[in-house]
Amino acid sequence: MRTLTDDVKNYVGKTARVEGWLHKKRLLGGLTFINVRDRRGLVQIVLQDKDEVEKLRGMQIGTVLAVEGKVVEEPRAPGGAELHDAKLEVLVPVTDEPPIEIDKPLSHKPDNLDTLFEYRALGLRNLQEQKVFKIRAGLLKNIREYLTEHDFVEIQTPKLLAGATEGGAEVFKLDYFGQEATLAQSPQLYKQMMVGAFERVFEIAPAFRAELSATTRHMSEVMMLDIEMGFVKDHDEVLDLVGNMTTDVLKKIYDQYAAELKSLNAPELIVADKVPKITVAEIHELYTKATGTDTTAEKDLTPDEEKWICDYSKKKFGSELVYATNFPIEAMKFYHKINPDDPKTVLWGDLLFRGLEIATVPLRENHHDKLVEQMKAAGMNPDHPGYKYFLQAMRYGLPQHGGAGYGIDRLVEKTIGLNNVKEATLFPRDINRLAP
Amino acid sequence: MRTLTDDVKNYVGKTARVEGWLHKKRLLGGLTFINVRDRRGLVQIVLQDKDEVEKLRGMQIGTVLAVEGKVVEEPRAPGGAELHDAKLEVLVPVTDEPPIEIDKPLSHKPDNLDTLFEYRALGLRNLQEQKVFKIRAGLLKNIREYLTEHDFVEIQTPKLLAGATEGGAEVFKLDYFGQEATLAQSPQLYKQMMVGAFERVFEIAPAFRAELSATTRHMSEVMMLDIEMGFVKDHDEVLDLVGNMTTDVLKKIYDQYAAELKSLNAPELIVADKVPKITVAEIHELYTKATGTDTTAEKDLTPDEEKWICDYSKKKFGSELVYATNFPIEAMKFYHKINPDDPKTVLWGDLLFRGLEIATVPLRENHHDKLVEQMKAAGMNPDHPGYKYFLQAMRYGLPQHGGAGYGIDRLVEKTIGLNNVKEATLFPRDINRLAP
Repeated sequence: MRTLTDDVKNYVGKTARVEGWLHKKRLLGGLTFINVRDRRGLVQIVLQDKDEVEKLRGMQIGTVLAVEGKVVEEPRAPGGAELHDAKLEVLVPVTDEPPIEIDKPLSHKPDNLDTLFEYRALGLRNLQEQKVFKIRAGLLKNIREYLTEHDFVEIQTPKLLAGATEGGAEVFKLDYFGQEATLAQSPQLYKQMMVGAFERVFEIAPAFRAELSATTRHMSEVMMLDIEMGFVKDHDEVLDLVGNMTTDVLKKIYDQYAAELKSLNAPELIVADKVPKITVAEIHELYTKATGTDTTAEKDLTPDEEKWICDYSKKKFGSELVYATNFPIEAMKFYHKINPDDPKTVLWGDLLFRGLEIATVPLRENHHDKLVEQMKAAGMNPDHPGYKYFLQAMRYGLPQHGGAGYGIDRLVEKTIGLNNVKEATLFPRDINRLAP
Repeated sequence: MRTLTDDVKNYVGKTARVEGWLHKKRLLGGLTFINVRDRRGLVQIVLQDKDEVEKLRGMQIGTVLAVEGKVVEEPRAPGGAELHDAKLEVLVPVTDEPPIEIDKPLSHKPDNLDTLFEYRALGLRNLQEQKVFKIRAGLLKNIREYLTEHDFVEIQTPKLLAGATEGGAEVFKLDYFGQEATLAQSPQLYKQMMVGAFERVFEIAPAFRAELSATTRHMSEVMMLDIEMGFVKDHDEVLDLVGNMTTDVLKKIYDQYAAELKSLNAPELIVADKVPKITVAEIHELYTKATGTDTTAEKDLTPDEEKWICDYSKKKFGSELVYATNFPIEAMKFYHKINPDDPKTVLWGDLLFRGLEIATVPLRENHHDKLVEQMKAAGMNPDHPGYKYFLQAMRYGLPQHGGAGYGIDRLVEKTIGLNNVKEATLFPRDINRLAP
């Protein structure tokens, strides 16, 4: 019977058999100490018998072992207990020295990221590295629970499409049995179509963007949370649902993963009851006044403004989450809704968290004829097969609706306080990296 | 304030305002009855006032409405109550007659499937159709819960790859910034690599296969559940985990969605405590003896054998789930483990349910040098960048492990008793269909 490492302490005075990887080996006062790692953590083992020590000759970190020994209380050992008089069995020998050291903290400095990703599968044998992906799984679990409790149906829509969802050049193309197909940049049109059936839907799925740049915030394959909800009174109802979800999920994560976040040096979480909303025009004004750099002519927020407004919101409203709303019409996509009270702006909010945009949260134009007009104004062809079914759903009745395109990788990055979205991704993809 | 349709019955004697789609309209005894649909179901509304009836002139099914009226108990109405003296507001008019009728059962006959998928977004406004996708969401929720409780970490691996995962021709290729990339046919190599970090992982994600055939069981984009677990004693441990998960999840679904499954005419669920295991050789023998058709020279199971063995298992073991095990070595993939007790077979089981293979559950070869040998024997190049990182993980120690490639669409199909995997998919993809 195998005992998992975090359970060893419950066998003090008895014998336990652990199975795992050789994680560390050292000599101390004539004794050999090894650490063995399994999915729950580490256990320390003292090898007294020379024959047992001999079995490890030439065996490198990563060697797969079964170890049986007497469990002894030892406050200085991980878990508070260790194995003595251990007998070893080498299950899978490793005779090559691994190219990276996994029992020490891995460097995440910008210059070392390439090494981090090159040896990702080995680096994740480090317990600190694993925490990032356990927190990521926890975030997704909490998001699913929140949305399901709020009557959203989780759907899966196709990634192989007949046409580009959003227009633009950043789309991967492929041959689909002799026909040109594109890889979905988002489930935008499908989730809107599904409002007509389920009212409230969400999807968590990869999205593909042929981003020509290699930045700390972009990848060519990202994990998106897409939310869409119908019968909303106004834009605020959508902003509040997505804002409340984020606040709720972050609070839970900071509670459920308190120890992990602390050991990863995550900043303290500061959130308010409601995510504050500031218009883009107001942000330009505030920023210009505070910094002396005039951004009032900018259409979008500059990256520095995104950081600045998050700091401002934290100080002024006690919230690291803040919405920038009412984007200028020049930045709009064809499916956005123009603000009837100020037709130079669009009912579109960006959710910012710790200096980074993590979600785009607009209201949609839900009237068929107006939408066709907006498509034509954007130079798009409403008769293209990629849009035909979307317009079909509009023609047969969609209520006022809105939703979010939410970057999961960015949420994980900022929750933990990482510096690059790729650090929050198991195997990141960008213009320079297609492997591992 | 909006009242959802299933909540209307709690307002008897009071006024309620519902918002939804015009779902049905009929005249009866000089009165106009309409059904309004929202995300919870239908409510019946009686229009007495001529001005209100007039507002619906020219309005087709799908018109988005807000309706306020007095709630009256009415046992014959959906939900047991209806609205009287209703006042209407047309929120979004629909003036074109929809191309399909959504208040009647939609035909799923093979000849009508093309129409079903062509108008999928509208067809899903039918409440019966929606049930399929609510059950699908429920299955995925229960699977996630089961695996998380069993210490599996949910991961997301890339779909844009440097090389074909499994070899073979059925792979989509695309240009990735001047380099050739392939779309993942499965997360096979990544999940095995992640055993080295987390021991137990799973992923639920789309997989892409350039299937040249159009059958009832294949699509070019499928939703796969991939499971992988390390430190397993033997193949049985993997088979039992996947079998027990399936039994547990199906029992829960048949409990949680009893009403929906009944109204969809799903068959009664018959499962045993454990999923029985029968070798492929035994199945050939049993089938040959029972039917007179000699299959003993076949490598794989024939589709008819898959159906037959499920019937056999149901009668003999009281289980609609059954494993076919020990596949002949001719059918093996390079990462499978050859059976040491019978080197003509592979430690690989297929999970069959109601006549269809829903999962492939093999043990893996986890020794680096043996794996390289098997790759070469399969005519593959171990130095290809698509395999380099996989072999790196092997070289630095992976314990004995196995897992499952599990077809979610097929599981949904067979759980409900549909006849085509595409009926279980929101927007199916095959050689003939890339839209909607």
